[in-house]
Amino acid sequence: MTIRGIAADAGVSASLVVKHFGRKEQLFNTVADFGPAAEELFDAPLDGLGRHMVLTLVRRRREQKGDPLLRVVFSLGNHDERSLLRDRFHEQVTARLTARLPGREPALRAELIAGQLIGLGATLSLHREGAGSLATPEHLADLYAPAMQALVAG
Amino acid sequence: MTIRGIAADAGVSASLVVKHFGRKEQLFNTVADFGPAAEELFDAPLDGLGRHMVLTLVRRRREQKGDPLLRVVFSLGNHDERSLLRDRFHEQVTARLTARLPGREPALRAELIAGQLIGLGATLSLHREGAGSLATPEHLADLYAPAMQALVAG
Repeated sequence: MTIRGIAADAGVSASLVVKHFGRKEQLFNTVADFGPAAEELFDAPLDGLGRHMVLTLVRRRREQKGDPLLRVVFSLGNHDERSLLRDRFHEQVTARLTARLPGREPALRAELIAGQLIGLGATLSLHREGAGSLATPEHLADLYAPAMQALVAG
Repeated sequence: MTIRGIAADAGVSASLVVKHFGRKEQLFNTVADFGPAAEELFDAPLDGLGRHMVLTLVRRRREQKGDPLLRVVFSLGNHDERSLLRDRFHEQVTARLTARLPGREPALRAELIAGQLIGLGATLSLHREGAGSLATPEHLADLYAPAMQALVAG
């Protein structure tokens, strides 16, 4: 992907992208850092983590801060830089969540929870003017978080 | 995206892609058709639909038939052909599922179920050698399907 392509996708000029992020490698390092997002998503006691994750993801999106995790889907090809994106996701999101989960098969449950988070962002993006866009974060959490909490509790 | 890019992502030669799918427009029409996948995913009575969807998705992937829905994430940019991909997904997956759901807010629940399906495919792709790759389809359904079934039942 070129700087021009990245800029076009973001709806800004290429020069603005370069001004803010510097060269392509620096831009990529910023994009591939899930650390701050994971920090925010996982910042809750275990017994309320499912709900916290849904509320955090939805509110961040509503505040135009962007989806915390969804960009990882662009790593689903086979190129080198895409696999760095995937590796960072494993390390900063999945492994970190695995370490916090009690009970059996924490790695498997963490992968499935990561899937639920990515899927929530994906469906809100795909249905930008759909029913999800009209629901409050609390209502989305009522519907979506119990399943995530079940996987957190194990 | 070019035919060469598509071929590289699929790990085959560009000439093989052209041979099988014809020109770029024909290839795109094939890629943007979620009808057969939706047919297969939703082919179960409502009281077992959650489990059926998980088993179908995981088994299709294991049999190397590819993920039924995940390619829709490549519509998350803003280009014209990508929005066709998104529109087809709405019509063939979300609207179809909405029409089958009983109870309140079927459109919202269908969007969230679509998210769970996309998320499951995404996490299995992202963690290709992870815990999910070692679990049986039945075990994945045990962990992941109850949440989907709760949204099906409403």
